[in-house]
Amino acid sequence: MKLGFIGLGIMGSPMAQNLIAGGHEVRLSSRSGAPRALVDLGGIACASGREVAQGADIIFLMVPDTPHVEAALFGEDGVAAGLSEGKIVVDMSSISPIATKGFASRINALGCRYLDAPVSGGEVGARNGTLSIMVGGPEATFATVRPLFELMGKNITLVGDNGAGQTAKVANQIIVALNIEAVAEALLFAAKAGADPARVRQALMGGFASSKVLEVHGERMIKRTFEPGFRIGLHQKDLNLALSNAREMGVSLPNTATCQELFNACVSHGGAGWDHSALVRALELLANHEIGS
Amino acid sequence: MKLGFIGLGIMGSPMAQNLIAGGHEVRLSSRSGAPRALVDLGGIACASGREVAQGADIIFLMVPDTPHVEAALFGEDGVAAGLSEGKIVVDMSSISPIATKGFASRINALGCRYLDAPVSGGEVGARNGTLSIMVGGPEATFATVRPLFELMGKNITLVGDNGAGQTAKVANQIIVALNIEAVAEALLFAAKAGADPARVRQALMGGFASSKVLEVHGERMIKRTFEPGFRIGLHQKDLNLALSNAREMGVSLPNTATCQELFNACVSHGGAGWDHSALVRALELLANHEIGS
Repeated sequence: MKLGFIGLGIMGSPMAQNLIAGGHEVRLSSRSGAPRALVDLGGIACASGREVAQGADIIFLMVPDTPHVEAALFGEDGVAAGLSEGKIVVDMSSISPIATKGFASRINALGCRYLDAPVSGGEVGARNGTLSIMVGGPEATFATVRPLFELMGKNITLVGDNGAGQTAKVANQIIVALNIEAVAEALLFAAKAGADPARVRQALMGGFASSKVLEVHGERMIKRTFEPGFRIGLHQKDLNLALSNAREMGVSLPNTATCQELFNACVSHGGAGWDHSALVRALELLANHEIGS
Repeated sequence: MKLGFIGLGIMGSPMAQNLIAGGHEVRLSSRSGAPRALVDLGGIACASGREVAQGADIIFLMVPDTPHVEAALFGEDGVAAGLSEGKIVVDMSSISPIATKGFASRINALGCRYLDAPVSGGEVGARNGTLSIMVGGPEATFATVRPLFELMGKNITLVGDNGAGQTAKVANQIIVALNIEAVAEALLFAAKAGADPARVRQALMGGFASSKVLEVHGERMIKRTFEPGFRIGLHQKDLNLALSNAREMGVSLPNTATCQELFNACVSHGGAGWDHSALVRALELLANHEIGS
């Protein structure tokens, strides 16, 4: 199948590579040009999104944020300029659910179909083809693209109409951040009360407090292993999507707002590159006490 | 073994019953007298905590809150008045970790040993003998009492010294409340954005957002099944322990504080008896939107 891939960074490159490895002809475009390694594997370097869209039936995007998707689709020499009826645009970036609905209708107006399909699983999942993919869009379009998703991911869910994939991703990032903050409050409380946070965590696993975050991020807090993982700077971007979309829709997210403030505090202490479990450090500053000390 | 059990409410009665069923002589005392059913099974009704302590080697308590434990132990005709050297006091109530350390030293000063051993698992766990028991106190004392804990519970952990059991319980209640709030923010965000919260929940299970709360309480929010379960009024009591102990120790728990405020809002709408997953209703009021509507 003739595919296109726009945005070839840390995530996009291995995802495009898995599509090439699946036997597809993949046209490539990126701000910094197509990586040599992908061209060596058979990828076709293009000068613009327009050129990619002209030569491909299904065009994937994997760029940092909402404005980058808008520019890649509708900017000068963008994808829209190269589309013709029947083609499919698949945005795998993590961006605004509300903006996504607008992008989808503008693409639909050109006689083309649109899927939003953000992922979780990070760089490792992108390399190993084990990403979770949350999809919004028409069922028939999902069925068409599904075999390609299967080259990049494992847990692939059609959540609903356009925007629903991005909505699910934001919901995911809200829960992960708030569960990290929950474990941080609980373990710091325990440490300051003189209990061993590691034994408290152990006693809580398996009960109603159990979570993937208690298991993974709780251990990072105790062992002080704050190499990412998932960077605070990226989680800030995701919580910004949550908070700005919530504001636009009229939804109050009080604990998401607090988490964002605590991430902000980490950044002001040099922590944009720390793993998001290091959110505990902001609470430790306030308590003048460190877990494990 | 000669045992005593003080506090024979919804939790205490079935716990005492399991000790009697285990073949032990159990002296009973409660504000409203010893329940007839327990006496019929072989329990011995006593007039006071002092009388219980005089006739028993190990005395269990299961009362509502910190002041009730203090009164039961050190009030007129309380347990302390009936203790003699070598006896063991086991407080299974959920109370203040800081106050617990004080109670333990006062009992130790009488030549007796003390365990704090709060539980989770509710009425069903108490009846079925499947409670989780989080214990604080000396290892040798824990070893002595362990066979009795095993008549009442399944997952039994020595967390640390006196107070550590209560600390673990508070940590547990912090995480459960904050995880409920996290799922509520995420599903309400999704619902207001037009996605189906049930499908969003499904897409998130198994990933980093997964938790016992997403599984159990997330489903309750979607299906609107707010019969307890665990009552908001009880969770308020537990978060009060968290916040008052945190204040005393100098720890900031911003999201625990917000959860308590949201529970307060539920109560002002008649919700003290709702299941704690109904915390989502406070957020729904703010958003003027209900999950599933």
